[in-house]
Amino acid sequence: MQMKVNLGKDSYPIYIEKGLLDNVLSYVQDIFKGQKIMIISDDQVYSYYGDKIKRQLKHDYIVGSVIIPHGEQSKRFDILPSIYSQLLSFQLTRTDLIIALGGGVIGDLAGFVASTFLRGVKFVQIPTSLLAQVDSSVGGKVAVDLPDGKNLVGAFKHPSMVLIDPLTLQTLDHRYVCDGMGEVIKYGCIFDKELFKRLKSYDSYEELFEHIDDIIYRCVDLKRDVVEKDLYDFGARLALNFGHTLGHALEQYYHYEKYSHGEAISIGMVQLSQIAEIKGLTKQGTAHEIKYVVEKYELPSVSHVSTQDLKNAMALDKKNIHKKLSYVLLKEIGESYIYPSDLSFIDEVEEV
Amino acid sequence: MQMKVNLGKDSYPIYIEKGLLDNVLSYVQDIFKGQKIMIISDDQVYSYYGDKIKRQLKHDYIVGSVIIPHGEQSKRFDILPSIYSQLLSFQLTRTDLIIALGGGVIGDLAGFVASTFLRGVKFVQIPTSLLAQVDSSVGGKVAVDLPDGKNLVGAFKHPSMVLIDPLTLQTLDHRYVCDGMGEVIKYGCIFDKELFKRLKSYDSYEELFEHIDDIIYRCVDLKRDVVEKDLYDFGARLALNFGHTLGHALEQYYHYEKYSHGEAISIGMVQLSQIAEIKGLTKQGTAHEIKYVVEKYELPSVSHVSTQDLKNAMALDKKNIHKKLSYVLLKEIGESYIYPSDLSFIDEVEEV
Repeated sequence: MQMKVNLGKDSYPIYIEKGLLDNVLSYVQDIFKGQKIMIISDDQVYSYYGDKIKRQLKHDYIVGSVIIPHGEQSKRFDILPSIYSQLLSFQLTRTDLIIALGGGVIGDLAGFVASTFLRGVKFVQIPTSLLAQVDSSVGGKVAVDLPDGKNLVGAFKHPSMVLIDPLTLQTLDHRYVCDGMGEVIKYGCIFDKELFKRLKSYDSYEELFEHIDDIIYRCVDLKRDVVEKDLYDFGARLALNFGHTLGHALEQYYHYEKYSHGEAISIGMVQLSQIAEIKGLTKQGTAHEIKYVVEKYELPSVSHVSTQDLKNAMALDKKNIHKKLSYVLLKEIGESYIYPSDLSFIDEVEEV
Repeated sequence: MQMKVNLGKDSYPIYIEKGLLDNVLSYVQDIFKGQKIMIISDDQVYSYYGDKIKRQLKHDYIVGSVIIPHGEQSKRFDILPSIYSQLLSFQLTRTDLIIALGGGVIGDLAGFVASTFLRGVKFVQIPTSLLAQVDSSVGGKVAVDLPDGKNLVGAFKHPSMVLIDPLTLQTLDHRYVCDGMGEVIKYGCIFDKELFKRLKSYDSYEELFEHIDDIIYRCVDLKRDVVEKDLYDFGARLALNFGHTLGHALEQYYHYEKYSHGEAISIGMVQLSQIAEIKGLTKQGTAHEIKYVVEKYELPSVSHVSTQDLKNAMALDKKNIHKKLSYVLLKEIGESYIYPSDLSFIDEVEEV
């Protein structure tokens, strides 16, 4: 399966295919005629797929690799000099290529490196986590973390191509598969009732995996549509934040240690919809439906953080600084809208 | 005097006016309706103009300042975290503004910060050195240095407005005025015989200063034209590198300590034209004319570095890695062309 993200001169193709990683060379040949390729990956992902990919690419290119420890702590700003330094030793030039092989951390980090090294080098995304496949690899947002917070330094940089092999999910820790499902469910909630129904109908992760390429395709296609309409973070793209305002606050409250991103937004989607139902802003029963699907995919639907603590955490979020918040609410499953309010909107949380 | 750089949605105005800094507020009001402004400057420039500008802007905005030590060493990548940190303490958001007040170092550094902080914040350039006024403030190239070399990490980021007050040159060290003249002379050489003649006709720096706003306008207008035609560093923009291949090599050979940029490219323009004349690639007498004007503005026209040492230095330049070099030569004063060759082209240097 393939699609094209239409962004004028920044347009690029996305390929989704089980087993695609056995044919990386031919995909890369299509878009890159230069000499050198640097693969940026983490130790875990590289141990599964690095050699396989490197071996193929070496037929046509000089191939190097930068391997960093796995985990969010590798996305720190201060890891950058060591990566730039490896690119310089490898003598990577502006006409060469960077491949980001890994989950969202690698995509964000390698994307930022590709956007800034020598003022910009082409890069290809090979996302290997479900979250990165359905979400991070489309949209052009790349970033690194500062001690003060996540994604505070970044850029907009579109890849030259995205290669998605759903079989990489076989080597992904189950918790991270669940993590990605948080975003998949979100796409159903905000844009696609049919997708939501399908997710509701599967009996198990096993059944889901039989159809995972279709599911990924659908999510990527929805995000592609949003990104094409709205490149710079406004309007339609806001809908993608459904569950994220509360979710981010929860992640921050626990210093990103208790909940994964997908877990946090699962709670966010359910709780926000519960509040919205009480206020008559969302169709009755919607929160219950989301809760059912979220729990089916082993994701949490409730937290026990006090309203005041959540508010304090939200006040730290850069997006909340002006205190006017744009909540994304559902009219019903598959249909979202923007509801401007402020922090007081979530006062209802404890009463739910 | 004003002009508009036409780059679609990235278009912006440039104002050139003696005494303009007394009216910064009204210019800023035209393009910025937000709340906060952070001025990024160096200790020297800020001591001359910082308070004057801050006082005006405070009528309408919350204004902060980041002041760094003057000099190229402040453009190091590792200065960035402390700047980001000050922006965070000031709670600067995506809808606020950064003002770069200073020479090329400040423009490059503040521009890179503006392009990466929160994935991009608007910025205004107030270039205060001649070099920055005629060259660095147009084109969108921003960058910082790594230990391995200059400008190795960067981005393309256009300002929202450029404000040029030629009176700032009164507080600029004379050597840096000369430095900027290297680039001014270059514009005459590659694009504008009339400009070159005017430079030749002035008897002193005093006479030049009477017309400096016109001279700056002409140079900026020439660069604007190149940038509009060619945003991403190819084609016409190459001509701007006249004298730079040899010049950079000289700068690197002396670790940026002996020659300023303008001094190095002055030598580069003269020596390259001497070689090109010997090879019959440039009209006879051209090198002599350039030498005359360069020396009039107190710039050097000759170095005493051996060909082999220059070659070694050039081989270190990232642009030379593939060994094929695009030399910019003059057909005659005012008309340039690209001559593809390699390092052997400069073997003639010693024989001149």
